[in-house]
Amino acid sequence: MAFVPQGERVRFVLVEPSHAGNIGASARAINTMGFSRLYVVNPRDKSYKEDPDAIALCTRSVDILNTSVMVPTLEEALKGVRIAYALSGYDREYGPPMMNLTSSCEEVKELLNKDDSSEVAFVFGTERSGLTNKQICLCQRCVGIPANPACDSLNLAQAVQVTAYQAQMTIRGTSLSNESHRFKEELPAPALAVDKLLEHLKQALVSCGALDEVKPKYMMERFRKLFLRAVLSQSEVDMLRGICAAVICSKEERKGSKKASKEI
Amino acid sequence: MAFVPQGERVRFVLVEPSHAGNIGASARAINTMGFSRLYVVNPRDKSYKEDPDAIALCTRSVDILNTSVMVPTLEEALKGVRIAYALSGYDREYGPPMMNLTSSCEEVKELLNKDDSSEVAFVFGTERSGLTNKQICLCQRCVGIPANPACDSLNLAQAVQVTAYQAQMTIRGTSLSNESHRFKEELPAPALAVDKLLEHLKQALVSCGALDEVKPKYMMERFRKLFLRAVLSQSEVDMLRGICAAVICSKEERKGSKKASKEI
Repeated sequence: MAFVPQGERVRFVLVEPSHAGNIGASARAINTMGFSRLYVVNPRDKSYKEDPDAIALCTRSVDILNTSVMVPTLEEALKGVRIAYALSGYDREYGPPMMNLTSSCEEVKELLNKDDSSEVAFVFGTERSGLTNKQICLCQRCVGIPANPACDSLNLAQAVQVTAYQAQMTIRGTSLSNESHRFKEELPAPALAVDKLLEHLKQALVSCGALDEVKPKYMMERFRKLFLRAVLSQSEVDMLRGICAAVICSKEERKGSKKASKEI
Repeated sequence: MAFVPQGERVRFVLVEPSHAGNIGASARAINTMGFSRLYVVNPRDKSYKEDPDAIALCTRSVDILNTSVMVPTLEEALKGVRIAYALSGYDREYGPPMMNLTSSCEEVKELLNKDDSSEVAFVFGTERSGLTNKQICLCQRCVGIPANPACDSLNLAQAVQVTAYQAQMTIRGTSLSNESHRFKEELPAPALAVDKLLEHLKQALVSCGALDEVKPKYMMERFRKLFLRAVLSQSEVDMLRGICAAVICSKEERKGSKKASKEI
């Protein structure tokens, strides 16, 4: 199953980007988040696919760069799109309603679920000035990425990265993929094993004088709290019990040798 | 009030970055999300603050770049940090527990709320190979950005951007700042105004033959549903009522002129 269910129905549209490097970086950005469809409207550099910066910055996402669709107009890029989301730092007087990025992604998720063929698009403007009012009015929603009012302009490829990230998280959920866990996590040890460990631990602590049976001062309760919070695995329980046994054993050996020396 | 409450207690630490441009891009990335503290551990280019790429890519975030703290070791960068979060594509065998980015930000939020002085750090490794096991073990948590297993390596500055974005969203909430709304949104029109509009609309639709009073076929109910979903403002109600009046009026004029021609 695809990393992002129905991710192939989400287009990322760059309108008149000035720098081929940003196109390459955007290709990588969407690929990392499980998307693959890049549209490039009337770029300054028509041969961006061969541009060294674009190729360098897309790193291993060359196929996304190469299969990107170059078109002369935004209308062309939006053919077949049911809802287009225009990324902007601010609303326009007679533009589409403004919403935040998370809400737009929730709407995308719902739409993709409701229907098997609808496509959506996230639309990004030029590096220098973003989208024009006219371009925004070709879209159905205006979307803002919440940002610091003192510095609210993100680099184009960064805006694409954040948008793709949020879309992935909203559509797919926030969990890491299995590949992030190279080392198999053990199950929690059964409750009984932890209880037995605590009994054994108490014996060990008493035997070495760390716990006064007369005034235990909640030490065992504190260990129980710690062990539960740590969610000990069976192998950790075994390791700790081994230590308890060694502590008790060494105490008994010392008792034993004292007796022996007394006998001598 | 600061854009991100207590954002000044969050450090972004770049370990041994190879490209000064990425440091500049990272400065901009954290600034857009309301953070300002950048630490740079043993960069390849010690004069990165004067590097043309760094300066170009930080655009207007020059102060973040200039106030970044260059240190020789990661230990140095983490002095005074209560919890350090190491960004990594995967867990390490004896490394800190792995968690996803959202969970780590929720933990950061709680910690910042609980205490007035604790600092946290997000730690990023080299462009080529990320953090070493040793570097990760200087941290308390290992954090993954959910990504496409087929392409799970984000550009360094992109990883910083996404992390800063998630941290901002988690700590602050997902709403846009006021500056995104340049045009004041009107309040919804009162319910009574919408009811009167619907009465007026019905008259207009009947007068021009668009609505058959004998078989209305739920047309008015459908308009009510549409108007409620659209959340009409008072000025929109006024505009629509003006149109209804014009339709009724023009119908009466035509009736009037027919009478006149009959009289003639």
